Amino acid sequence: MTFNDCLRDETPWDADGDKLREECGIFGVIGSADAAAMTALGLHALQHRGQEACGIVSWDGKEFFARRGLGHVAQVFTDPAVIAQLPGQMASGHVRYSTTGGQGLRNVQPLHADLARGGFSIAHNGNISNAMHLKQELVNKGAIFQSTSDTEVIIHLIATSRYPTLMDRLVDALRMVEGAYSLICMTPKRMIACRDPLGIRPLVMGRIGDSYIFASETVALDVVGAEFVREIEPGEIVEVRQDGRLSSHRPFGNQASRPCIFEHVYFSRPDSVLGGHSVYEVRRQIGAELAIEAPVEADLVVPVPDSGVPAAIGYAQQSGIPFGLGIIRSHYVGRTFIQPSDGARHADVKRKHNANRALVAGKRIVLIDDSIVRGTTSMKIVQMMRDAGAKEVHFRVASPPTNNSCYYGVDTPERHKLLAARMDVPAMTEFIQADSLAFVSIDGLYRALGEKQRNAGCPQHCDACFTGDYPTRLTDLADRDAEDDQLPLTVETAA
Amino acid sequence: MTFNDCLRDETPWDADGDKLREECGIFGVIGSADAAAMTALGLHALQHRGQEACGIVSWDGKEFFARRGLGHVAQVFTDPAVIAQLPGQMASGHVRYSTTGGQGLRNVQPLHADLARGGFSIAHNGNISNAMHLKQELVNKGAIFQSTSDTEVIIHLIATSRYPTLMDRLVDALRMVEGAYSLICMTPKRMIACRDPLGIRPLVMGRIGDSYIFASETVALDVVGAEFVREIEPGEIVEVRQDGRLSSHRPFGNQASRPCIFEHVYFSRPDSVLGGHSVYEVRRQIGAELAIEAPVEADLVVPVPDSGVPAAIGYAQQSGIPFGLGIIRSHYVGRTFIQPSDGARHADVKRKHNANRALVAGKRIVLIDDSIVRGTTSMKIVQMMRDAGAKEVHFRVASPPTNNSCYYGVDTPERHKLLAARMDVPAMTEFIQADSLAFVSIDGLYRALGEKQRNAGCPQHCDACFTGDYPTRLTDLADRDAEDDQLPLTVETAA
Amino acid sequence: MTFNDCLRDETPWDADGDKLREECGIFGVIGSADAAAMTALGLHALQHRGQEACGIVSWDGKEFFARRGLGHVAQVFTDPAVIAQLPGQMASGHVRYSTTGGQGLRNVQPLHADLARGGFSIAHNGNISNAMHLKQELVNKGAIFQSTSDTEVIIHLIATSRYPTLMDRLVDALRMVEGAYSLICMTPKRMIACRDPLGIRPLVMGRIGDSYIFASETVALDVVGAEFVREIEPGEIVEVRQDGRLSSHRPFGNQASRPCIFEHVYFSRPDSVLGGHSVYEVRRQIGAELAIEAPVEADLVVPVPDSGVPAAIGYAQQSGIPFGLGIIRSHYVGRTFIQPSDGARHADVKRKHNANRALVAGKRIVLIDDSIVRGTTSMKIVQMMRDAGAKEVHFRVASPPTNNSCYYGVDTPERHKLLAARMDVPAMTEFIQADSLAFVSIDGLYRALGEKQRNAGCPQHCDACFTGDYPTRLTDLADRDAEDDQLPLTVETAA
Amino acid sequence: MTFNDCLRDETPWDADGDKLREECGIFGVIGSADAAAMTALGLHALQHRGQEACGIVSWDGKEFFARRGLGHVAQVFTDPAVIAQLPGQMASGHVRYSTTGGQGLRNVQPLHADLARGGFSIAHNGNISNAMHLKQELVNKGAIFQSTSDTEVIIHLIATSRYPTLMDRLVDALRMVEGAYSLICMTPKRMIACRDPLGIRPLVMGRIGDSYIFASETVALDVVGAEFVREIEPGEIVEVRQDGRLSSHRPFGNQASRPCIFEHVYFSRPDSVLGGHSVYEVRRQIGAELAIEAPVEADLVVPVPDSGVPAAIGYAQQSGIPFGLGIIRSHYVGRTFIQPSDGARHADVKRKHNANRALVAGKRIVLIDDSIVRGTTSMKIVQMMRDAGAKEVHFRVASPPTNNSCYYGVDTPERHKLLAARMDVPAMTEFIQADSLAFVSIDGLYRALGEKQRNAGCPQHCDACFTGDYPTRLTDLADRDAEDDQLPLTVETAA
Repeated sequence: MTFNDCLRDETPWDADGDKLREECGIFGVIGSADAAAMTALGLHALQHRGQEACGIVSWDGKEFFARRGLGHVAQVFTDPAVIAQLPGQMASGHVRYSTTGGQGLRNVQPLHADLARGGFSIAHNGNISNAMHLKQELVNKGAIFQSTSDTEVIIHLIATSRYPTLMDRLVDALRMVEGAYSLICMTPKRMIACRDPLGIRPLVMGRIGDSYIFASETVALDVVGAEFVREIEPGEIVEVRQDGRLSSHRPFGNQASRPCIFEHVYFSRPDSVLGGHSVYEVRRQIGAELAIEAPVEADLVVPVPDSGVPAAIGYAQQSGIPFGLGIIRSHYVGRTFIQPSDGARHADVKRKHNANRALVAGKRIVLIDDSIVRGTTSMKIVQMMRDAGAKEVHFRVASPPTNNSCYYGVDTPERHKLLAARMDVPAMTEFIQADSLAFVSIDGLYRALGEKQRNAGCPQHCDACFTGDYPTRLTDLADRDAEDDQLPLTVETAA
Repeated sequence: MTFNDCLRDETPWDADGDKLREECGIFGVIGSADAAAMTALGLHALQHRGQEACGIVSWDGKEFFARRGLGHVAQVFTDPAVIAQLPGQMASGHVRYSTTGGQGLRNVQPLHADLARGGFSIAHNGNISNAMHLKQELVNKGAIFQSTSDTEVIIHLIATSRYPTLMDRLVDALRMVEGAYSLICMTPKRMIACRDPLGIRPLVMGRIGDSYIFASETVALDVVGAEFVREIEPGEIVEVRQDGRLSSHRPFGNQASRPCIFEHVYFSRPDSVLGGHSVYEVRRQIGAELAIEAPVEADLVVPVPDSGVPAAIGYAQQSGIPFGLGIIRSHYVGRTFIQPSDGARHADVKRKHNANRALVAGKRIVLIDDSIVRGTTSMKIVQMMRDAGAKEVHFRVASPPTNNSCYYGVDTPERHKLLAARMDVPAMTEFIQADSLAFVSIDGLYRALGEKQRNAGCPQHCDACFTGDYPTRLTDLADRDAEDDQLPLTVETAA
Repeated sequence: MTFNDCLRDETPWDADGDKLREECGIFGVIGSADAAAMTALGLHALQHRGQEACGIVSWDGKEFFARRGLGHVAQVFTDPAVIAQLPGQMASGHVRYSTTGGQGLRNVQPLHADLARGGFSIAHNGNISNAMHLKQELVNKGAIFQSTSDTEVIIHLIATSRYPTLMDRLVDALRMVEGAYSLICMTPKRMIACRDPLGIRPLVMGRIGDSYIFASETVALDVVGAEFVREIEPGEIVEVRQDGRLSSHRPFGNQASRPCIFEHVYFSRPDSVLGGHSVYEVRRQIGAELAIEAPVEADLVVPVPDSGVPAAIGYAQQSGIPFGLGIIRSHYVGRTFIQPSDGARHADVKRKHNANRALVAGKRIVLIDDSIVRGTTSMKIVQMMRDAGAKEVHFRVASPPTNNSCYYGVDTPERHKLLAARMDVPAMTEFIQADSLAFVSIDGLYRALGEKQRNAGCPQHCDACFTGDYPTRLTDLADRDAEDDQLPLTVETAA
Repeated sequence: MTFNDCLRDETPWDADGDKLREECGIFGVIGSADAAAMTALGLHALQHRGQEACGIVSWDGKEFFARRGLGHVAQVFTDPAVIAQLPGQMASGHVRYSTTGGQGLRNVQPLHADLARGGFSIAHNGNISNAMHLKQELVNKGAIFQSTSDTEVIIHLIATSRYPTLMDRLVDALRMVEGAYSLICMTPKRMIACRDPLGIRPLVMGRIGDSYIFASETVALDVVGAEFVREIEPGEIVEVRQDGRLSSHRPFGNQASRPCIFEHVYFSRPDSVLGGHSVYEVRRQIGAELAIEAPVEADLVVPVPDSGVPAAIGYAQQSGIPFGLGIIRSHYVGRTFIQPSDGARHADVKRKHNANRALVAGKRIVLIDDSIVRGTTSMKIVQMMRDAGAKEVHFRVASPPTNNSCYYGVDTPERHKLLAARMDVPAMTEFIQADSLAFVSIDGLYRALGEKQRNAGCPQHCDACFTGDYPTRLTDLADRDAEDDQLPLTVETAA
């Protein structure tokens, strides 16, 4: 659906909204007696893709069962009694980060509807970039939306399609939408997994025993003990029937793919394998590229925990400068906390991270982080290192400057809040008060991914957040620029 | 929506499902700075019409705000912060008893939808007797239902109507539905209150300052300090605009009305005034009629608390037999309770009611109750009186035998579970083990309402529960008898 | 422990603190496999004696188990799993109303301590009038109190007594205390029930099968199906061993008893039998006495619900004036509620009680209440009747003027807040705006109890609240008047 | 109070009880307007020392205020309203891990009592090894205990001491206790911090503005922005009065100190400074010692996250073998979780940690962990590495074999459950299925702490868990071996 935090929803950096956030993770399994329990485990492994809410829908051959809740998977699906209320051999689930204004349970996926031919559920990772446009047309014809989610547009397009079979209706609907989507759908007869023609958001297939599994990342296969089969290909629709027969459809023809490059930088877990690459190894390699592109004389390489660790290891190994934990992260962090009114400056930061003063004092250090979004936390970390006695603080970033918003399911701040959209590198260096600052180059990033360089004519990835080169039309954005007309929506307060 | 308990959801009798239950109460106010708080108070006074869930929707001139919850009004709307989240000068609310299968929050009213012309909310008391039929047609055309409520049918009919104005669309929709409905609707510009052509369920209008109020009963006017203006007439649509202009529409022509007679027997609160009659006085008068129709030699008239009290007072006054509290009701009753495994037989009954042994012992008593549904609790009360030493127990019932189901918004047991549908009076007397048993006659009941007798050709009330004379078609019932085909529905477990 | 509300903790009258409150009810059972479940049921029947908190302690032959909670019995002990955590054949329980400042769980009884000889638990109804005095002495010797309850003094006196056996230690302790106490104690070997030498607070014994039961009122025997055996006599200590042997001790000699007369007026449930009298019948008889002592020409006798009902029936029967429900009480009342800021004057009263306008309008009415404490609610009820159109409102009270505080376990307002302590009857009549006002005489009250009159030299009851004639010394009160020195106490906020 | 988990209460290893657990952390501040908020922050930084419950007591010059709760600091003390209920310029707090049987709130510290001279509160880290012995004596004299905590013994000893001043009573009490204690006490006039004569458990003093702070570790000073002043010395009693005057007492004479060595190995946070040493640096140094003492040919050094990281960095740097994250830890872990009944073997482990397969496959790896307790998780980790394709797995442990229980406030398994107490190193190697296994030597550990070696005649630390050399008498243990007689205790179930 949109952008969101990977491994760190609770870091102080995040408290400042200073990381991009993946909006969703999805998981589905068909053919297992333990479908709902497996789905809960799988969602747990995808928790970094969305911490605000989660849901599971199951089908037991006669009825659909649904459970949605606000909070982490471990909160909503901990109770075995809850899992027992989700019977059947097919289940799918969703974790999400909230979208603007979308309070309440009604936006929590998988969405489900009772269509004329029977129940239909859908779990979506990505963002439909012409959703508002399509919604207005549907409402004018009498459709009643129950959520503010772009995903519901797909359901209404299916419900009102004139094609006879569900598969035809689905293809009919998807032809009308633009943007990014990885979907896991369920009907009384089958599970359907598909990925948009550019394959912007990830989706993999696994297998355990007679069950097929679909998930946003390979770590969700690992946790349930499934083996990785292959990625769903861009534009592919995979259908698995109740009896286990699998078929693949390619209704959109062939097209060069553009998978999101930021998954490698930050979104995916380091132990996932994505597009054939170990995420950890790519990040370590980016660190090595960075050490080559932006060397510095220093005594210690310090990662910003935890997402900077692999790149810091790479930087240290390439440069020969020792690696050390100059910042210690607390394991006990809650969302909110009281704040003493005096004395304890930056207590919110300190209760989450603390400088390892004895290690840092008197040293020239290289701080490694994966990206800079607003820059406010980078500034605080630099200050924390100086307060701890660091002699010099050099900042190195394992991605190019992030200077464009994402419209494919990632929650990015407005463009004018992106530090790199507001100033050049010397100004940024001064803003964060570092002794030096450097980003890996866009070609360095592609090299870490095994490419020779970025193919400017036909880029191998969607890298719009770094380059502004968007691979699809952005209809709603164009409409919004034209007018500021939105449907009034009821504000439902949480129970 | 359906049948339900009035003043006694927590009596042991009710625990046995031995009272009919009114399914809903509705309340709306327009033109008050305190709209949501007034609505909460009004719903509280209507709590006896539905104890399972409640909701309020408000409109502040720009947005709709909604809050729904399971439980009593005093639980869901106690917190001033909750009321503060429902701003604006127009609000409407609903209390409901649950329908079969309808777990979860999605059936809690007022329902709300974002239509092409803007938001629309609806609170409904009654039952649409062709709802399933209309729903199937709508789904076939691509409509997606979010609830299992019959009320949602009305919204979809409005959304898909081809008429241009909302008022025309509403009339268009209501022409298609059959059954019982008192409605309070809100649009961004006005509040609309209406009652089905037969006026089966009640709806009154009140006024306080510049505000208009609509409510199921006059007690809801009393609690907010409003004066009673008049009842909404059968088939009338009353529209109040934001500027206070009121207009009345009669799109369905004229027709003899058939208001529910059971409101007088049990549903309405004794301090309400309904159809020009004091509910308390009618009940007292039924007791007097009963004393004339079914006299008995006895020492004490004992009401079954609390609904039998007014009729018992009437019986005592007419017969000259002293009135006394032979059964004491506990004020502290919860839904469930532990049960000792031995020793304490009928502890569930005893912890809620206790015989006033010192009063009852050695006496010939007349027990007065408002109605008999299944008869199981009548049997227990008779036994309780005998255990306390009563010499004779005569049972008198302040309504005719209840032997037909209701399809107009009251939750009745299946017909074969109604005692009066299964046996005649002598058999019932033996079943409840009374020394004698008598019901007021149907004409006696009409006399207590000031009529000379029931007009058989054109009854003055809907009395189908006593006579089987249903005033409308019952399309869904006919369909259900024909086939057993229902749409599959997702089971959403409560959060 | 102190004073408290009987049947009406949630009436608006109560919200104004306008009823005296019994502070406690106690229950114990020995010899039943269902001891804890029976205790929960028994406490439920005694709920009117204390609605703020409750607790149960059980003994399974090896260990004591305890559970205490804030709230009603039906909230704290509803879950069978909770009862299952209270195993064993002996259990005792307590319901209480809060004392001043005594927030938190630590004052909730039964109190329990691990003494040198083993565990000891105690449940207390009454109030020790020299508790502060004894506590100061104990603390000076090194005792550490864990509660602010007067009851804990008894435990420390037992713990530090020099006598060898527990029974001797208990008698030693009780000789030191003054005031009112009905106690149910448990040790690993037996249950001990006792009553202070004057028998101020009630305590009865019952039997079911091989189990003995002790309880504050007979209704608690009824609810568990036990038969009433006898009252514990003033100054008696009854001991029941695990093997069922019962013995009775009279260590304090003989003395004329002085049981609380207000139990008959208001505290006890109408279906209890106390001192050989039906509570309901005594109240009805007080109403009849009142009709003789203070007759009036009127059209309708209206009880203030619910405690005024028996006396109103008596008044109506004696006077021949019809009885009618002129005030209807809502069954759905919660502790707190939002209040509209305008329009709805007295909404808090109206949502709990509503005038039965159609009955009252145009009539001369006699209002009957059990007592007047502060008078503020009496004033509101008179006004409510006038607003409903009553032509005349005559107020009759089924007890003498309450003009003294209680120090024996009833929560009375300070003396200067008692209306009858501030003004005479004509002034009170004007204060509550009634057309006339009369109280039953003290001798009329004793007559309703079967006495010829009050024996002024040696009153048959404690009637200090009406007469100021206190049957014991009031040491703490004297001390408090001397100085204002209290131990500092930690304020523990509820979790 | 006893042993407990440092940074990892939620790791799978911990789920197996496979880490020792520090039982407590304490914090106190005097002289700050923000005392309670500072204490909450300080406790948060000490959360790793106890995750089961926490409490804060404050003094506002007139009254003590207390709040205790089960759960993390961020759960119990998040709400500013809760902090607002703890007013005053002096506050102290406690985090704890539960002791055996000690359910419920009554054992949560700080404990507080109202003594004859006024209120007294105490927060304790450590364990009194003759507590049961002293308790029996006190109970025999009439003392009533409200908790099962050893700490309460100190309070009763103070309450019953014959000395006149509180300071004398405290010293009198402490002379009678044996074992380990770091205490923070509060009276209406002052804060008192002290440490047992051997200084077994840590306690430091800090300063910010005019406030003094006492805390278990320096990280708690860091989080509130205070500067480190010094450690409280073994046997020292530091007293700070309300006016800020500080005095130090040494009533126990001089003695060689024996601070716990395991604080350096595992309990303390790596960013704390303890006994003049950076905890991080000591751990890194242990890793280097281990590389010297137990070298191996390998391709990758893999830490067991997170406690093995510093030693792994040291091992890698010393050996020249690359360091890499071969195990990825999930940041989203809850206490319990559903378990699929088939398919997903070891799902509980996998949802918390996942092998970084791409990094580990085909390599010879050295796993570094801080200690081995039961060995079951070591076995699972070795297996996880082999499943991920590791060619060889060599296990290195950054502490000597743990083969004795702790009686000084650490929760250790019974001795026969300690792997090192049951078998020698070759057997352990086979048990965990490693290719090789080595522990750092006891002298190597002392070397990492800057000593030349362990001084066998007079060890510089308490290292009983490694050597069995206990520095105090263990009276209760001796008593327990003699008999098995314990006081019966009431089981209070949580509300």
